[in-house]
Amino acid sequence: MRRRQIRLNSLYSHELKQTSPSLSLPLEMTNVLLPDGSQRHFDRPVTCRDLAADIGAGLLKAAVAAVVEGDQADLSAPLPAEGDVRVRLITKRDPEALAILRHSTAHVMAQAVMRLHKGVQLAFGPTTAGGFYYDFALEEPLSEEDFPAIEAEMAKIVKEDLEFERINKPRDEAITLCRELAQEFKVEHIETGLSDQSHVSFYRQGEFVDLCRGVHVPSTGMIGKAFKLLSVAGAYWKGDANRQQLQRLYATAFFDKKDLQEHLARLEEAKKRDHRELGKRLDLFTIDQKVGSGLILWLPKGAVIRQTLEDYLKGELRRRGYESVYTPNIGRVELYEISGHYPYYSDSQFAPIDMEDGERYLLKPMNCPHHIMIYKAKPRSYRDLPVRLAEFGTVYRYEQSGELNGMTRVRGFTQDDAHLFCTEDQVAGEFRACIEMTQEVLRSLGMDRYRVRLGFRDPTSDKYVGRPEVWDRAEAELQAVCESMNLPEMSIEQGEAAFYGPKADFVVTDCIGREWQLGTVQLDYNLPSKDRFDLEYIGPDNTPHQPVMIHRAPLGSMERFIGVLIEHFAGAFPLWLAPEQVRVLTVSEKSEAYGREVEAKLKEAGLRTTGDFRGVKLGAKIRDGQVDLVPYMFVIGEKDRDEGTVTIRDRLEGDQGAMSFDAAVAKLREEIAARTVRQVADAQAPAVSLSAGAENEY
Amino acid sequence: MRRRQIRLNSLYSHELKQTSPSLSLPLEMTNVLLPDGSQRHFDRPVTCRDLAADIGAGLLKAAVAAVVEGDQADLSAPLPAEGDVRVRLITKRDPEALAILRHSTAHVMAQAVMRLHKGVQLAFGPTTAGGFYYDFALEEPLSEEDFPAIEAEMAKIVKEDLEFERINKPRDEAITLCRELAQEFKVEHIETGLSDQSHVSFYRQGEFVDLCRGVHVPSTGMIGKAFKLLSVAGAYWKGDANRQQLQRLYATAFFDKKDLQEHLARLEEAKKRDHRELGKRLDLFTIDQKVGSGLILWLPKGAVIRQTLEDYLKGELRRRGYESVYTPNIGRVELYEISGHYPYYSDSQFAPIDMEDGERYLLKPMNCPHHIMIYKAKPRSYRDLPVRLAEFGTVYRYEQSGELNGMTRVRGFTQDDAHLFCTEDQVAGEFRACIEMTQEVLRSLGMDRYRVRLGFRDPTSDKYVGRPEVWDRAEAELQAVCESMNLPEMSIEQGEAAFYGPKADFVVTDCIGREWQLGTVQLDYNLPSKDRFDLEYIGPDNTPHQPVMIHRAPLGSMERFIGVLIEHFAGAFPLWLAPEQVRVLTVSEKSEAYGREVEAKLKEAGLRTTGDFRGVKLGAKIRDGQVDLVPYMFVIGEKDRDEGTVTIRDRLEGDQGAMSFDAAVAKLREEIAARTVRQVADAQAPAVSLSAGAENEY
Repeated sequence: MRRRQIRLNSLYSHELKQTSPSLSLPLEMTNVLLPDGSQRHFDRPVTCRDLAADIGAGLLKAAVAAVVEGDQADLSAPLPAEGDVRVRLITKRDPEALAILRHSTAHVMAQAVMRLHKGVQLAFGPTTAGGFYYDFALEEPLSEEDFPAIEAEMAKIVKEDLEFERINKPRDEAITLCRELAQEFKVEHIETGLSDQSHVSFYRQGEFVDLCRGVHVPSTGMIGKAFKLLSVAGAYWKGDANRQQLQRLYATAFFDKKDLQEHLARLEEAKKRDHRELGKRLDLFTIDQKVGSGLILWLPKGAVIRQTLEDYLKGELRRRGYESVYTPNIGRVELYEISGHYPYYSDSQFAPIDMEDGERYLLKPMNCPHHIMIYKAKPRSYRDLPVRLAEFGTVYRYEQSGELNGMTRVRGFTQDDAHLFCTEDQVAGEFRACIEMTQEVLRSLGMDRYRVRLGFRDPTSDKYVGRPEVWDRAEAELQAVCESMNLPEMSIEQGEAAFYGPKADFVVTDCIGREWQLGTVQLDYNLPSKDRFDLEYIGPDNTPHQPVMIHRAPLGSMERFIGVLIEHFAGAFPLWLAPEQVRVLTVSEKSEAYGREVEAKLKEAGLRTTGDFRGVKLGAKIRDGQVDLVPYMFVIGEKDRDEGTVTIRDRLEGDQGAMSFDAAVAKLREEIAARTVRQVADAQAPAVSLSAGAENEY
Repeated sequence: MRRRQIRLNSLYSHELKQTSPSLSLPLEMTNVLLPDGSQRHFDRPVTCRDLAADIGAGLLKAAVAAVVEGDQADLSAPLPAEGDVRVRLITKRDPEALAILRHSTAHVMAQAVMRLHKGVQLAFGPTTAGGFYYDFALEEPLSEEDFPAIEAEMAKIVKEDLEFERINKPRDEAITLCRELAQEFKVEHIETGLSDQSHVSFYRQGEFVDLCRGVHVPSTGMIGKAFKLLSVAGAYWKGDANRQQLQRLYATAFFDKKDLQEHLARLEEAKKRDHRELGKRLDLFTIDQKVGSGLILWLPKGAVIRQTLEDYLKGELRRRGYESVYTPNIGRVELYEISGHYPYYSDSQFAPIDMEDGERYLLKPMNCPHHIMIYKAKPRSYRDLPVRLAEFGTVYRYEQSGELNGMTRVRGFTQDDAHLFCTEDQVAGEFRACIEMTQEVLRSLGMDRYRVRLGFRDPTSDKYVGRPEVWDRAEAELQAVCESMNLPEMSIEQGEAAFYGPKADFVVTDCIGREWQLGTVQLDYNLPSKDRFDLEYIGPDNTPHQPVMIHRAPLGSMERFIGVLIEHFAGAFPLWLAPEQVRVLTVSEKSEAYGREVEAKLKEAGLRTTGDFRGVKLGAKIRDGQVDLVPYMFVIGEKDRDEGTVTIRDRLEGDQGAMSFDAAVAKLREEIAARTVRQVADAQAPAVSLSAGAENEY
């Protein structure tokens, strides 16, 4: 995110320097370099739109905005008056076009609300992963009943085809303008949030003017008809519960009606799959206010899924030479002062526990300092390395209450964590093995669509520990390993590193096309350093050396991963993970005794089983089994009793006929051992490239 | 403990009423009822000693003290002047005699120290499980070099055969006496600790006078020669680190030299088995001050033992119809206000976490409130009961730093916890099943010597929640179940209940005769009640009923149990628990390739294995394997390589000859599956009845 912001900043400073003067000065030649390698020369002042028109009428019609020297620009933006300039025109088909369209639609939505309502105060209106929102302060509250009128007014504005005009103003003039417009939030934001900028930009369409960094489509006409208001919710000015309450209007927009319909269907599907709803209906987890927000109570059925996953991972860890450890959930504040977690990250931490005897403890926000103390518990030789310490370690972070969401955004979570301590020579191999383990784990869960995002530091930020040259080395090492592995859709994002080192995050696309950041592998030359924990091993040269650390969690956290898994599988877990694997149903009471025997034998065979021996019709029992998403039902009739068989009913494929008990158990055991995933295909949707919000905001 | 104190209190109030007047009033007949059913009549004032003399010279010589109407008394104590009185004379062979001897020896030790040192201030001097100590404030510090002189002076005092004389004083006279003696700790204790008593007692032998409740042996001569000073350590007045620092002199005493020698040998053995030393030497666990005192970091080898034990218990839980859950390590303070843990138990808790938004959290001191919230997460029917929720739940308690001890006394520990919710009708059966599971788990670990202690409330204390009639019912229910089970050496102790209900604790004797309180099963009619969590189930009558709760933990906590297990096995764990099960040793480099193959195949077979392929002599490798307490070594020579065999070396029984690889693996697997315990017998010692200290203290 930050990377793009930095570029936008540099674009605008360039623009402010060049735009106005270049029109009146003597002109030199502008030489445009296009992505296909061709060039175009202009000896007059030209805008991006002029360039599009010069190339052809089709492109002019399709063009949404442009990328000039790597930074986005409006079509109306003038090109530099001299020299070479690389330009790419963004058309509706390009991935960045959708966010531009949506942000423009947000302005149109705000304009419509202001036309229909009095005294509207504009706050912020950014794009989000699936659309956009705008926050307003209004005299009367909005409700879904107002949506048709707002949508109709938006359609009118689209029909008016108003041009989006960019206006640059010095700060003082900008404040005066916002005062004239009676937009007090904008005044405050220029005065406080943008106090370091000499000029700020506005966009105007028709009578509507808004403080905005851009970019926008050329005119409201391009927005078309494929937009829809989705919901309205409460929000606070600058997200601060002590500030003014606002109304947040959520909406989305596409270039194409068909895309909008697909998106709405996906939202509908997502609602059905909502892990909070399914978690409740299927007795997987609960949250109780007396225990605390964001703190998960795993009910027995959810705990089965977690324990089964943990057992599977433990087997993988053993196989790969990891050693398990257990560490406490707290540590003395001093420990986190050394690591750098405290006080720099105290914003997102639980407050310290202050004892009367002067001791101070923190709930651990990460497991690494504890694992480091285990590494330090005895002298290490190069022969002992790599040391790979694994723990399902429960950590605590105080997320804002407004950001909590079921199991996917919580305040206490258990990481499938490990820390590797190795020599410089071992880094590449160990890092690669961590990436491979993550790939294998995701594959085994049927999550084979993911991209890998390399998170590097933002060199302008002070939130990182360690020296720049150490960071450069770590980033280069990580990038080299990942590039050698041909990871899918690899991208680099500045400002997304952990505070101690760069990382590779697995961003997984679920079966309805949403992206989730799950597994992570992180490289760390900082915590082992003399300034931090001063880790050592004795090398073959008999002198102390500093090991390198790798932090890694293939799933990320059990809470978030299983929350995502519930939605991915819509609650219908594959057999090996299903809390209830088989349900025994009797046709009538004549087969009840045999049914109970089958249930007991299934339990003895280690299968998670219940029996439904109620005196109701078989059809009702089967319906209940389907609703409860039980992978298999063993239907037991008199014939089964007499012949020692069970009649198998597959949740996905229906009646499979009779089979001997032993054969049926063998069939299930085989499916469990193979950890077969059968139930995803039905909801498979193409991955959508979702841009994550707020980047048009200052 | 409290029970006995109460009785002592009642004895002394009786004594204060009767002793002095009875000597001058007209006398009636005293009729002594003896334990063998016989009676003795006296028409004159008699003491316990007179009674002993009356029975016979042998008994007079052997008598240490007496039990009058159930309460201990000195031999010099007068018997009531009239009516029936039950008296039992305590001889050296009776279990309570040892504590009386030891407490008398403590007085002799204090006397000796005062003879040898100037300005000695006496603090407290109670008996402990294995001996006694006395806390002094001295001008010069004591060290082990002073022990011979103190012991010699004690021997002199014994030879002087000074009588122990009891002196009762009104409070004000007692304070004056202590002032005269310049014993300021005693003055403070009478003024603050004993402020509710009208009279207090002193004991005098020779020039030495000490505030003391008693009882004592008749004279110092009875102490004999079987005593020994053991160690000296720092302590604080009233255990408060802010008060004056004291020197604590530890010692022990027996009636018989042979018993002393055996005890000292046991201490020596205990030192060798000290889990803190073994934990370090065998890389099982560590404690780091940066993480915090009393917080265990489980190193990989210790974590193997814990995980193996947990996996075993999880299998038992599944088999017995328990369901696993996971809950967070914190909860809102409100939750513990409902349960009663807060603020009543805040002394032994970590301080609350106070957030800026006003939320307050506690590290959980127990898992029950969380499991209760899971019970409450949905409506329950009688058909769902019993609900049995199990969790390896990590809890935190702020034990005093002076009381912390390795893994056996910690500030963070993981209970093998479960809570059962059942109907009244199910209580007896469920309680019995919990006791049986505890018995089976202990048996499987070779810990078959234990006694069961029923902890009931102290009706005079206010530290319990719930109404008396509820307590009476719970205590009666628990006692009835336990009595029906013929539990070994069952005893009832008032004042040892949990704050919500009575309990049955398993007090295990380890293989060198020390007792450990480990497993527990607790009955609870209080937390489910309307005043607390208001739990319900819908009965067959379609109306709500209150379930009964059982809290139970067969091991108690993983930390304490494994700490005890390390000492019990002296670090030599049975094969199924051993962190390293087999070590592959090569005779020379000629068999190294085959040795590495054997190691890899053992790992593949799921055995915890390392290889020792160093170029050192086989004898050295075997010695290292023995020191590291590895149960089996597979010695690999050229003959083994050629014939595909391994030569097995058993840690306990030495060379077992060659065997095919497959047969060797099968042999080990069989021993693992049976969880065979082979290594305890070597250190087996008779159980010692250890009285736990401080009961002679006010």
